[in-house]
Amino acid sequence: MTTDSRARILTGDTPTGRLHLGHWVGSLERRVALQDQYDCYFLLANMHAFTTRFDKPQDIRADTIEIVKDWLAAGIDPDRSTIVLQTEVPAIAELTWFFAMLLSFNDVMGNPTLVHELETKGLKDTYSFGFPMYTVGQCADILAFRPTFVPVGEDQAPHIEMCRKAARKFNQLYCNVPNRTEDDDYPARGGVFPIPKALIGRVGRLPGIDGKQKMSKSLGNAIFLSDSEKDVQKKLNRVQNPTRNEQGVPDLATGALFTFVDAFITDPAHNADLRDRYQRGVIMDGHVKQEVAAAVQALLAPMRERRAALEGPAGDDRALAIIKDGVKRANATAEETLHLAKKAMSLDFGRRTLA
Amino acid sequence: MTTDSRARILTGDTPTGRLHLGHWVGSLERRVALQDQYDCYFLLANMHAFTTRFDKPQDIRADTIEIVKDWLAAGIDPDRSTIVLQTEVPAIAELTWFFAMLLSFNDVMGNPTLVHELETKGLKDTYSFGFPMYTVGQCADILAFRPTFVPVGEDQAPHIEMCRKAARKFNQLYCNVPNRTEDDDYPARGGVFPIPKALIGRVGRLPGIDGKQKMSKSLGNAIFLSDSEKDVQKKLNRVQNPTRNEQGVPDLATGALFTFVDAFITDPAHNADLRDRYQRGVIMDGHVKQEVAAAVQALLAPMRERRAALEGPAGDDRALAIIKDGVKRANATAEETLHLAKKAMSLDFGRRTLA
Repeated sequence: MTTDSRARILTGDTPTGRLHLGHWVGSLERRVALQDQYDCYFLLANMHAFTTRFDKPQDIRADTIEIVKDWLAAGIDPDRSTIVLQTEVPAIAELTWFFAMLLSFNDVMGNPTLVHELETKGLKDTYSFGFPMYTVGQCADILAFRPTFVPVGEDQAPHIEMCRKAARKFNQLYCNVPNRTEDDDYPARGGVFPIPKALIGRVGRLPGIDGKQKMSKSLGNAIFLSDSEKDVQKKLNRVQNPTRNEQGVPDLATGALFTFVDAFITDPAHNADLRDRYQRGVIMDGHVKQEVAAAVQALLAPMRERRAALEGPAGDDRALAIIKDGVKRANATAEETLHLAKKAMSLDFGRRTLA
Repeated sequence: MTTDSRARILTGDTPTGRLHLGHWVGSLERRVALQDQYDCYFLLANMHAFTTRFDKPQDIRADTIEIVKDWLAAGIDPDRSTIVLQTEVPAIAELTWFFAMLLSFNDVMGNPTLVHELETKGLKDTYSFGFPMYTVGQCADILAFRPTFVPVGEDQAPHIEMCRKAARKFNQLYCNVPNRTEDDDYPARGGVFPIPKALIGRVGRLPGIDGKQKMSKSLGNAIFLSDSEKDVQKKLNRVQNPTRNEQGVPDLATGALFTFVDAFITDPAHNADLRDRYQRGVIMDGHVKQEVAAAVQALLAPMRERRAALEGPAGDDRALAIIKDGVKRANATAEETLHLAKKAMSLDFGRRTLA
């Protein structure tokens, strides 16, 4: 049973490689902060990774363990927050079935994010059935934990909208919640599921050090949270500078340097002072980079320290132990959700125990 | 662990209403007989029923309990065979995910039986995502029990073919079974899944008493296994007679009467004698119907007796107890399958217990 009275949050990552500064600015920073206020569930979407890498199961496993280390290093506290390994929570798979019966095929296939992914990943006609199915699975990922909020990037908004649709329909059909109920009132009216709200974060698009594209592991332009001090310094030295006009006046909107300044020098007075002195020519690119580097190193130093304690086989064991503990707590919640859903669907044949 | 050395069989029904003589001739008769020779798993596909009746969960539950009673009445022995309630076997939902990653979207959507169902059920564009997903789910229904044989009707052959494809691909990809392995050799080569064979039954198309269409609950032309003696007699009296030519000679291929004779008067000498005397005009329609009725009543009498013991709330309790016992045994097998599959997929994070 749930004893935590804080509002619940669900969000997560698909294990596809080490996390970088783009992840930090885009979502991780906020997650770490949310832990105080909210009952947080952080999902390791390892089944989702099979949609594009079903032929590399060992890589997915390694990435799953690495991401736990990255999370812990970044400040996710497994005592306060619940780390959820997707494939160890059977209720997610079972709820996927329930929601699949409530969502129309055309709605799923028309999901704009799915359509975009199918186009951009160059899969043409070769994608698996699991690819579109994952759109439905994500409803179950979320609703298994009956969260109030789902912090996500803007591109995930259509998925959250579909999830809300599934929750409304389930509640109306199986819990007799009237059709025109306000979203916030569903639980009070007897619905099993809250209608969760997306929390779209502050702009999470950190450019890579090349200043051209979004920071991304596959583009080779990323600074990883687990990079050494030296590597971070080297990469920051390469961050693209603003261009200057014929008079030598820099345009701060060009290059990547001042996006880094804004991302990491968060004290407003310090930030403003830096911009001012730079524009007046008092300081140059090198000086700004020094300051950015100092800020980034200050951010990463404690992460590096926490991560160092997690290296090697002992670190793997620690990550696995945290996964196991998280699975236990995740299943306590998800099994309760499943039981409530089954009761509502006349599918209650006695409650099971899972250990 | 499996201790039964007999070859394993998986088959089942979607709970959509009481069983009738068409079901008996088509599959149930054979299932009852197979119990001696094989380790049988009989699936109550109650999740499948949601593909067309998601808005009638209570009806699905009632039909699920009724079908157990019909099975027991027909001679399914829950001590020898395992009755599997689909929604109580989480491994089925989890394996559905695994196979969804291995089957291409186009293969699933092109499944001839699925295409035919979508056309004939008049669902147009309104069907749920769960409808095509069930094609993948059926692979999991079957493979969760690693059966050697799957007795099905001819229309199910494409589903079994897809299931075999999924099993081969899983074994090749995750168990290092070489691509050109003979189907029968997969388990010996280290595959988790056998490549199950369809057992297509003797022609299972019993016409309804109207002689026009297949016997079907929804067409009102069915004789149910649970019909009273009087109702059976009344319905058999209405079975369509053969037509006669101008000389009064009957054409036994017309009408439904002699399909019933062939279905229920199975002693070859008796059957031949009846046909001969009828064709020579020694006996008429009424006499043949008497003989058919005697055979059908002899078949149904013990079923009726066993069913009488299952009426009312005590009977419901008995059916539920049998379901619970079956679930326990089904999960012992399915959890083992899931564990083996997860190990092969690098998804083993400690084996769970389910009770």
